Amino acid sequence: MTTQTKIFDVGIFGFIKILLRGAAQVMFQCNAWCGLLFIVGIFWGAYLSGMPSVAWGALLGLMVSTATGFILNLQDEEGAEGLWGFNGVLVGCAFPTFMGNTVWMWLALALCAALTTWVRSGLNNMMRGWGINSFTFPFVLCTWAFLLASHTMHSLPVLHSSSHLVDTLHRVHSHMFLTDAWGVIKVWLRGISQVFLIDSWVTGLLFFVGLFISSRWAALWAVVGSALSMGTAWVMGVSVEHIHEGLYSFSAVLTAIALASVFYRPSWRSAAWALLGVLVTVFVQAAMNVWMQPFGIATLTAPFCVVTWLFLLPMFKFDEHHPDHTSWH
Amino acid sequence: MTTQTKIFDVGIFGFIKILLRGAAQVMFQCNAWCGLLFIVGIFWGAYLSGMPSVAWGALLGLMVSTATGFILNLQDEEGAEGLWGFNGVLVGCAFPTFMGNTVWMWLALALCAALTTWVRSGLNNMMRGWGINSFTFPFVLCTWAFLLASHTMHSLPVLHSSSHLVDTLHRVHSHMFLTDAWGVIKVWLRGISQVFLIDSWVTGLLFFVGLFISSRWAALWAVVGSALSMGTAWVMGVSVEHIHEGLYSFSAVLTAIALASVFYRPSWRSAAWALLGVLVTVFVQAAMNVWMQPFGIATLTAPFCVVTWLFLLPMFKFDEHHPDHTSWH
Amino acid sequence: MTTQTKIFDVGIFGFIKILLRGAAQVMFQCNAWCGLLFIVGIFWGAYLSGMPSVAWGALLGLMVSTATGFILNLQDEEGAEGLWGFNGVLVGCAFPTFMGNTVWMWLALALCAALTTWVRSGLNNMMRGWGINSFTFPFVLCTWAFLLASHTMHSLPVLHSSSHLVDTLHRVHSHMFLTDAWGVIKVWLRGISQVFLIDSWVTGLLFFVGLFISSRWAALWAVVGSALSMGTAWVMGVSVEHIHEGLYSFSAVLTAIALASVFYRPSWRSAAWALLGVLVTVFVQAAMNVWMQPFGIATLTAPFCVVTWLFLLPMFKFDEHHPDHTSWH
Repeated sequence: MTTQTKIFDVGIFGFIKILLRGAAQVMFQCNAWCGLLFIVGIFWGAYLSGMPSVAWGALLGLMVSTATGFILNLQDEEGAEGLWGFNGVLVGCAFPTFMGNTVWMWLALALCAALTTWVRSGLNNMMRGWGINSFTFPFVLCTWAFLLASHTMHSLPVLHSSSHLVDTLHRVHSHMFLTDAWGVIKVWLRGISQVFLIDSWVTGLLFFVGLFISSRWAALWAVVGSALSMGTAWVMGVSVEHIHEGLYSFSAVLTAIALASVFYRPSWRSAAWALLGVLVTVFVQAAMNVWMQPFGIATLTAPFCVVTWLFLLPMFKFDEHHPDHTSWH
Repeated sequence: MTTQTKIFDVGIFGFIKILLRGAAQVMFQCNAWCGLLFIVGIFWGAYLSGMPSVAWGALLGLMVSTATGFILNLQDEEGAEGLWGFNGVLVGCAFPTFMGNTVWMWLALALCAALTTWVRSGLNNMMRGWGINSFTFPFVLCTWAFLLASHTMHSLPVLHSSSHLVDTLHRVHSHMFLTDAWGVIKVWLRGISQVFLIDSWVTGLLFFVGLFISSRWAALWAVVGSALSMGTAWVMGVSVEHIHEGLYSFSAVLTAIALASVFYRPSWRSAAWALLGVLVTVFVQAAMNVWMQPFGIATLTAPFCVVTWLFLLPMFKFDEHHPDHTSWH
Repeated sequence: MTTQTKIFDVGIFGFIKILLRGAAQVMFQCNAWCGLLFIVGIFWGAYLSGMPSVAWGALLGLMVSTATGFILNLQDEEGAEGLWGFNGVLVGCAFPTFMGNTVWMWLALALCAALTTWVRSGLNNMMRGWGINSFTFPFVLCTWAFLLASHTMHSLPVLHSSSHLVDTLHRVHSHMFLTDAWGVIKVWLRGISQVFLIDSWVTGLLFFVGLFISSRWAALWAVVGSALSMGTAWVMGVSVEHIHEGLYSFSAVLTAIALASVFYRPSWRSAAWALLGVLVTVFVQAAMNVWMQPFGIATLTAPFCVVTWLFLLPMFKFDEHHPDHTSWH
């Protein structure tokens, strides 16, 4: 009766393909080449910034969360599309970014990555009736718990240097922001790389190429989302330093891809809806930066989740839904 | 096939009527004359306290959120009853109360007012299965986001003078509170005016008259809610200064109207239920004042929403539901 | 038509039996003898630590919340099984633990205990569709509101001495923890007693005996949950002082009982699931300690609720559900 795929059935190449798709699903793509470019981008950015453990953490998180789906015998169509892996790969990027390199950190990373797989399953059960999906919120929720815990656990040392711990009181506002075109382009690309908590324009470019291979619309909206959020954040006068690091763009990039190319078919109406979504994401990003400040943790991709939920919950039908992303409906 | 009302169809007088009903719906009334008195009360209080931008903000928010419902082609029965406007008018009162008068504040006000219309639609989709309604929570949620964001955005300057930013550590408790009957009456009426963030007993009186025109039960319960919450807060020993400004009454007024006259038909049982609701609202108001303190934002009408949900979710049937408020069911 | 049980129908002995079952239901047991031992344990611990008001508060809360179910005419099968009382008894333990002994504290305790009964009814209505139950969350939610409120209400004086107000910055980590076997056993038992906010190994032993009378599996998993959480907290390096007081175990004890013996039939699979749940509960406990720190309130049993929800929401079927706990399904 049971037709569940076992981990042994898919073979080593099948498993690698599922892992790569898992990385790609962070930006809603079911495409192993796209995922490969994402992984390459993560390794480039992690090694360049002297934090190789971020890259190896990403791989470990991806493998553990994907394997957990097999072990728990979850629906195998979801697994084949990489939907067990995208929360885990983000957990794997986040843990070494915010916590020191101890053996307990690696064990906690594996536990948290595994946890995201069934938290995703549970939250999706809860949200199915509302016509929405948990997106990257399992990663956000579980990682928040471990990051908060690290503030009172000796075995999970806090790295206070992380740029994601936005100091909202520090507001260096500069009007000289737009004088350097090449600088603007680098910020633009960093906004995309920060989806995986990487601060590197080369990584942003690799992510863009990966998206382009999988979906031109997704690639277009990633750059539109990054540019519009960067501009909005600048106009609203947040700290230029945070804009430079792409910290006002990574959630907006995901909102843009989701609303314009995944949950609605590309059209003028869905484009307007996605642009509104990006605008609102910038304010929610700023709000959550202030809200999280007293707790010393990062917003992660929560602003994207919250805004995309608020824009999907009314269930407006601009046109028929996009037919080739069934996994997300 | 589509029988949606277009903004052009209702005409200028029809649109004004819908706007006035929108103001009245903040206190659950579908009555343009009631809404007119509310608007007059807002203008009186805003100009008297030297903050005319609060009144114009209220008008702008009301118009933008109502127009958004037409543009998005939402269910037109709801629009005709003013249910697209009540969150927007509150956004319009709140923004100039908490933020300085910049052009970006006005643009953010318009964006936030529009946002409440589809956030309301989405939250109602979510809550319909539980037999509850989102009430003023779209206003609360969206305004919280922008208020938090203003703490890190130069273009949205924070007005620290707002009395709604309750300093819960400041606890001037005085037993001399009840010596002056006229003073007590003014506090009583200010508790009603604070529903729209206005601190004026004249405005409270205008709101009372507006309610009385629309529903004698609603008017009665507004004064009962304000009086009981004032007394409870005083007995429990919160800062007298905050009681004086009506800050422990505005949510209780809404809870009282909702439970005693909207969601249950007036009766001894529903009266007892509403009195309990008012008592609990005072504690939840105090709790949220303490909870919000570290973030520097106001509770807005969240205590009313939370308590009324908790009192409606058990779905007790004291008697049949009130027949003439179908819009709220 | 109505077949509701009235409070007069059950008689004085029937009512006492329902009360005792209410105490037992805190740990998911529908057994009056178990409840009697729990009450004895509470009195022992409360008197020993010089806080008799905790014991009398527990009795008052238990009676008020149970009577509220009768007055509101809720489903009487639930009442007969003690499901109206378990939130109230916890409210009654918590109020005198965190607030000074004033007449207003006792009135607030009664109001809060009554409130939990219909909040439970409402939350269960909400959660039924997701296949979960509100557990002790009505107690947690309502008590949080009153505890936060006490920080700004003179009539509810805050007791700052409570050990449950975990100072997460205070991290005395000692490797000498395991040198004393008898000391370890006392900590182990205190982890069980802290479910009712009691810090006494004798009380823990009485609770264990009570559980053993009702269900050997529940008793086994209480000690497994306490031991594993104690060890995990120690290994992760939280303050030894907090481990000593059982503050990392009480939620884990409840998670273990719920997952291993109530919602899943005892088996190797459910045992593994429960052990994972205990591990995750320790991290969520640490996280919530840090999260609550700025507000000066305790986590209460929220970590248990959150983790058990996350482990039940995926609705995994390891085997058929346990047949003799219909009240919890």
